Amino acid sequence: MKRVILLFMALVALSSMAQKKPVNPDVYYARRATLFEYLPVYSSDIIMLGNSLTDGAEWNELFDNCHVKNRGIVGDIIPGFMERMEPILQGQPRKIFIMGGINDISHKVGADSVASAMRTLVTTIKDRCPKTQIYVQSVLPFNNEVRHWKSLQGLEKVVPETNAKLKALCAELGVTFINLYPLFVDDKGNLKAEYTNDGLHLMGKAYLIWRDALLPYVNK
Amino acid sequence: MKRVILLFMALVALSSMAQKKPVNPDVYYARRATLFEYLPVYSSDIIMLGNSLTDGAEWNELFDNCHVKNRGIVGDIIPGFMERMEPILQGQPRKIFIMGGINDISHKVGADSVASAMRTLVTTIKDRCPKTQIYVQSVLPFNNEVRHWKSLQGLEKVVPETNAKLKALCAELGVTFINLYPLFVDDKGNLKAEYTNDGLHLMGKAYLIWRDALLPYVNK
Repeated sequence: MKRVILLFMALVALSSMAQKKPVNPDVYYARRATLFEYLPVYSSDIIMLGNSLTDGAEWNELFDNCHVKNRGIVGDIIPGFMERMEPILQGQPRKIFIMGGINDISHKVGADSVASAMRTLVTTIKDRCPKTQIYVQSVLPFNNEVRHWKSLQGLEKVVPETNAKLKALCAELGVTFINLYPLFVDDKGNLKAEYTNDGLHLMGKAYLIWRDALLPYVNK
Repeated sequence: MKRVILLFMALVALSSMAQKKPVNPDVYYARRATLFEYLPVYSSDIIMLGNSLTDGAEWNELFDNCHVKNRGIVGDIIPGFMERMEPILQGQPRKIFIMGGINDISHKVGADSVASAMRTLVTTIKDRCPKTQIYVQSVLPFNNEVRHWKSLQGLEKVVPETNAKLKALCAELGVTFINLYPLFVDDKGNLKAEYTNDGLHLMGKAYLIWRDALLPYVNK
């Protein structure tokens, strides 16, 4: 009887594994995540982990540093980062810079939920890679006057609310919070119009501002 | 009177410049092209020039070579490459690998027109960068059974037709043609289903096939 119960439990577990859906079901995510599974990460590496904002740049070129590796995926959410962390964690990288939250906010999860997902991510990295220096970057503002993002309508204030929670989280966990928000926001709380052509994503010159803000942490 | 005519001609020229529309009006293209204007290219560099297929990879990591630089932009067409060549040409790179044509084909321009656009691009590089080694890669197949791309419907045979013209063009201009098509095509003329999740773009393992095919040319 014990064997039958164990067999039944094993079958239930297998069935639940087979049915497990990815938290980010996007086809672009799936392709890029499989690429990242093949690309090795070393203990000398500096990982730029994030969503489309990170994906859009050539970080090794911006920093003129071959150890800097792009691990951004368009549309990704913080639980999506978690699902693809294994190849990064195994590499025990020197530093990880995290840029996440705006897509989570667009899914209406709220500031507390973003901070909670970030807590899971940061504590996982701390646990698995105790020598890795972790940098949590603030969520950047967006600008719904340049182009209307329906999923972000009325959520301008959630960005600084989230950033306040991320800052407190970093203080609690003993990791570095990098507040980029003031560099990108105008006096109405929007992403500066000159830095974007769609209200959300960044033009080349905005990446130079971002790069300059990170330089002291990358080179430290 | 002569001065008035010259002034009038100057005004006409200025007005035509102001009205000139980009050949690729996409907002993503505009953002990434402005980034590429800020990233220097050196005479030791190997440029991966292309569309989404090139954009999607981390080429410096695939080749473990810091001199390899990604100059791919999602959705780009060969005339779009031409409009953003200046920062690349000024750098006099060691090698340029070109992957283009599938988006042009989706715009129904035909094989002759793709080859004609490629001729303009290659002759411009040869003229401006006489020391640069130029590699024209074949257009890859797609698979409309995995996902239906309406803009590519019924155009499967235009891909090998285009490749035949690109091969002849390369022979005529004295540059290297790299035929990747046989590595990616199944026996029905489609992109191998295992290499894609949307019928057009590449999974991680397909980038390894591509990388291995280019290695002899990159390391030469």
